Amino acid sequence: MAKYKMILDLDTGIDDALALAYAIADQDCDLIGIIGSYGNVLIEQGTQNSRDLLSLLGASNVPVYEGLSHSSTTSNFTVQPVSARIHGDNGVANLNLTHASTKIEKQSGVDFLIDAAHKYKKNLLLVPTGPLTNLAAAIKKDPAITKLIGHVTLMGGALTVPGNVSPVSEANIHQDPEAANAVFQSDIELTMVGLDVTTRTLLTKQETRIWRNLKTKSGSIYADLVDYYIEAYKETNPHLNGCALHDPLAVAAALEPKLLDTIYLNMKVDTNEPYEGRTIGDETRLNLPAITTQVATNVDVKRFTTKFMERLTTLFQKY
Amino acid sequence: MAKYKMILDLDTGIDDALALAYAIADQDCDLIGIIGSYGNVLIEQGTQNSRDLLSLLGASNVPVYEGLSHSSTTSNFTVQPVSARIHGDNGVANLNLTHASTKIEKQSGVDFLIDAAHKYKKNLLLVPTGPLTNLAAAIKKDPAITKLIGHVTLMGGALTVPGNVSPVSEANIHQDPEAANAVFQSDIELTMVGLDVTTRTLLTKQETRIWRNLKTKSGSIYADLVDYYIEAYKETNPHLNGCALHDPLAVAAALEPKLLDTIYLNMKVDTNEPYEGRTIGDETRLNLPAITTQVATNVDVKRFTTKFMERLTTLFQKY
Repeated sequence: MAKYKMILDLDTGIDDALALAYAIADQDCDLIGIIGSYGNVLIEQGTQNSRDLLSLLGASNVPVYEGLSHSSTTSNFTVQPVSARIHGDNGVANLNLTHASTKIEKQSGVDFLIDAAHKYKKNLLLVPTGPLTNLAAAIKKDPAITKLIGHVTLMGGALTVPGNVSPVSEANIHQDPEAANAVFQSDIELTMVGLDVTTRTLLTKQETRIWRNLKTKSGSIYADLVDYYIEAYKETNPHLNGCALHDPLAVAAALEPKLLDTIYLNMKVDTNEPYEGRTIGDETRLNLPAITTQVATNVDVKRFTTKFMERLTTLFQKY
Repeated sequence: MAKYKMILDLDTGIDDALALAYAIADQDCDLIGIIGSYGNVLIEQGTQNSRDLLSLLGASNVPVYEGLSHSSTTSNFTVQPVSARIHGDNGVANLNLTHASTKIEKQSGVDFLIDAAHKYKKNLLLVPTGPLTNLAAAIKKDPAITKLIGHVTLMGGALTVPGNVSPVSEANIHQDPEAANAVFQSDIELTMVGLDVTTRTLLTKQETRIWRNLKTKSGSIYADLVDYYIEAYKETNPHLNGCALHDPLAVAAALEPKLLDTIYLNMKVDTNEPYEGRTIGDETRLNLPAITTQVATNVDVKRFTTKFMERLTTLFQKY
């Protein structure tokens, strides 16, 4: 029996696709469901991508739930041009993935999360790799879940480095700063895996060549996805020599927290310009005795990238 | 013979006065000079305060040098109203300290620092508690000193918490962001002791009462200084229950680095609004192998405050 129950909350673009593959490939992880979010793509596209990728990787049995389609303070959502540039218009490098025959679950993603929290309690790991809209909505609907869920390991934010959509703000948090702030202000146990660490873990075409050489369908598709992503990174992040493994690092760290160096710090999110979306320590809660939030400040790059390649390459050999 | 040679670079307001007392009280520390800076007060007032306090504490033999009187990008300096509110118009709680008979040294503070770097090399500790104007000027004049000076432990900046003069900027760094950036971009070994940690170390009127009860001149004056500072903190930082021991923490950490938890991170300083004066990791130097900058993220509060009270109380008993 698998040790952990994991829920991924994805806005499935390219690095979400890598996170999904990492979770499927991990032996200690029982992926019990995916909640769809908006962000890199519209929610409909994201849940389609998730189902298509699950199908590609022999994991059609993992249910996909629809979360909320826009932020807690807006009435609709449009994809930013920069997201389309990095992930492709369809979030998966403009590839035509074979459409899965699976359907989206009828239960809402928010209710699924609440039910899972009550059912699995401390055994449940939640990994949001997009906006924190769904988690904030679940906490608002059932505040008890903050004490139930084992741990939240989220990809988002930037504490010790600049942001990527403004000098102070990272994209996922910037999508819904109010939701992120509500999550940070709650007493849920969480680890923020932000740009502080994800921009230290890089993938290059050397690695995608290994997947391409497997001569499997999944190896070829994932090589195409990541090569597209690497090309986009050359434009948007010319100082990095590769693409950042944002979302899969959050999954890996959820399963093996020791990959990260963290500091304990109560956090808040600024919700007004020009600092909107900034993740920063909450000075009013700095000296409280109980701190439930950890922020990753460094990562064992070699250990993570080695595990990442071992697991994904093994998975891509099969499908 | 004392183990370390220390130079303080002070803009002598109230917490600088505490830093100065801590350095004098420490047995491992040979305070070889004070460089005056602008910031909490004008440079003339600051060097006067330093000499008056040295005299009060039986340390008139410590030479005081005049540094630069304004930032590297301006032609003059005026004290901000908030500085006058926190430290008093004269930087020392509007008290009339007995004027010392000692004079300011003829050599400039910048040249004194350069000479000391060459003379004492790794044995030299520099603790700037104001703007980094003097250190940046010294590095510009003689870049070799970055490899000579043992360690710089500066009070300034805010990495994981908001600033105190803007949501992103701390006062000392905000005085001269270009100078601070030049220091951070150099390869000098330094530790940033910012608001991240200094706002965790607080003093209250319980402690100043101990000094007042000593019935000595220095005990009484320092109690008056800090009581004034505590009253100002009630207005400016109502969420803290006391006043922050910014500058003395930097001196203590210079002498005992283990007081701090630090992360290694190459830093930069934003020099344009609305982020002017922000201290943040330099994303272009994130993954370099050699990192010479540490940023304090936590502090052993009990150990520091206990040592602080022991040393200062012992000193104030004598004078």
